[in-house]
Amino acid sequence: MRLPSSSGPPLRKLESGLDGALGTQIVSATADEVVLTLAIGPHHLQPYGVVHGGVWAAISETAASVGASINSGSPVVGLENHTSFLRAIEKGEVQAVARPIHAGRSTQVWEVVITEIGGPNRPAARPVAQSIVRLYVLGDRPDR
Amino acid sequence: MRLPSSSGPPLRKLESGLDGALGTQIVSATADEVVLTLAIGPHHLQPYGVVHGGVWAAISETAASVGASINSGSPVVGLENHTSFLRAIEKGEVQAVARPIHAGRSTQVWEVVITEIGGPNRPAARPVAQSIVRLYVLGDRPDR
Amino acid sequence: MRLPSSSGPPLRKLESGLDGALGTQIVSATADEVVLTLAIGPHHLQPYGVVHGGVWAAISETAASVGASINSGSPVVGLENHTSFLRAIEKGEVQAVARPIHAGRSTQVWEVVITEIGGPNRPAARPVAQSIVRLYVLGDRPDR
Amino acid sequence: MRLPSSSGPPLRKLESGLDGALGTQIVSATADEVVLTLAIGPHHLQPYGVVHGGVWAAISETAASVGASINSGSPVVGLENHTSFLRAIEKGEVQAVARPIHAGRSTQVWEVVITEIGGPNRPAARPVAQSIVRLYVLGDRPDR
Repeated sequence: MRLPSSSGPPLRKLESGLDGALGTQIVSATADEVVLTLAIGPHHLQPYGVVHGGVWAAISETAASVGASINSGSPVVGLENHTSFLRAIEKGEVQAVARPIHAGRSTQVWEVVITEIGGPNRPAARPVAQSIVRLYVLGDRPDR
Repeated sequence: MRLPSSSGPPLRKLESGLDGALGTQIVSATADEVVLTLAIGPHHLQPYGVVHGGVWAAISETAASVGASINSGSPVVGLENHTSFLRAIEKGEVQAVARPIHAGRSTQVWEVVITEIGGPNRPAARPVAQSIVRLYVLGDRPDR
Repeated sequence: MRLPSSSGPPLRKLESGLDGALGTQIVSATADEVVLTLAIGPHHLQPYGVVHGGVWAAISETAASVGASINSGSPVVGLENHTSFLRAIEKGEVQAVARPIHAGRSTQVWEVVITEIGGPNRPAARPVAQSIVRLYVLGDRPDR
Repeated sequence: MRLPSSSGPPLRKLESGLDGALGTQIVSATADEVVLTLAIGPHHLQPYGVVHGGVWAAISETAASVGASINSGSPVVGLENHTSFLRAIEKGEVQAVARPIHAGRSTQVWEVVITEIGGPNRPAARPVAQSIVRLYVLGDRPDR
């Protein structure tokens, strides 16, 4: 996994795979916090015209995986992603902030909060989604 | 929401939005069961080369939403998506089967099981992911 | 952990700890299915007079733990318990049936469905709760 | 539901039902935060001698329910309780702090963090469990 350097450029796109298809960008990433952004477009919506819940789950999974990988110094694999949908939005830009709740040797638990960003009218935006992600730290045991 | 007719053609693509970007196809959809398929491609992967967990959450969210909408006869909105990742795969085609666990007037709970399909070597594939999705049945109350 | 023998007496009470306090009884337990029963009493209720959600989470945690321990041949520890509350009840007797969704070497995922039992009027009871429990199989790695 | 007054005595026991059986005590309760405590005893343990996961789920369910009831000014009923187990403990006293993540008109989402308290050696205890609880605000619609 090509992990971002927190001392690198301020914005780095995850260029390939699902992250590339969605347009997820890394703002910063350390062992204690990962910040991603996503500019909402038509390819993020569900048939009613609001952002598809799978987008929130996907961005939180990426954020937690990047964080747990840096934190553990090891590849990680997701075990569970529980995303709560809090508010429907149709457009704009969002920020996902991931922080570790538990950094064990075998598994880690990260919490991700996704909020709208930008615009002078949104100084303290309520979250649009929140996720709890449990990840398995790969080591000497091959499967999960 | 343009819902599929279960008496229509056997395969119907969800053409726009996230479903279109992912390539989700509807095989059948009734009030008691929804079956979707997805052919895995490069745009579904995470950096390690296996399917991104967000793909499993997205397809289960679509399946449960289509089913709950038919079942309730009303628009629905997702409240929670809890996806358990069971086995990593890199390619192939998967099937998501959604069935209602609880069909209440205000909320519904659907379970979605995603398995690999196709190939003579895979007669009884173990699931790759499983989701529990809780949805809110929109009615006289506007928000969630 | 004193595990029940599936060839033993048909009902065995988990005598101490939380299971003893709640009155959980083991009907049967194998590597593929665990069946528990619980007779609802005043000590199971929340202030509105219906069964407290914590009771459903507790019985599902016990059922999944017993099953995963038998299935893996190893002690296990719970990682996640996600319980969906489906229908409120005030009295009666319930049955929890746990079955494995995924039996990996490092972690297992069990699903538990809790339904009312007994009474000629309840031939096909709808579930009162459903749980997904992820457990860690203890081995050479000490923590979770 | 007999709700605690935040201006009342500093400790109030939930005397009956599951809360009474477990020994849950209310320290404070407002629309934005609920604090409960629990002194661990033998009746909270699972067969290995550590606190049963159902205890963590139960105390978080109580904390979120009390908070959402105050916050909404209406009776509430739990929809989902997702508890992550972070660290096993055998004794001592714990504190559960619940705060709202989303306070909608129809549903609310509360997060509960449970940590050990007391003792000069534990100034910044790591959490033992964390829960996300979604509740339905009862109003004009009878079921969930």
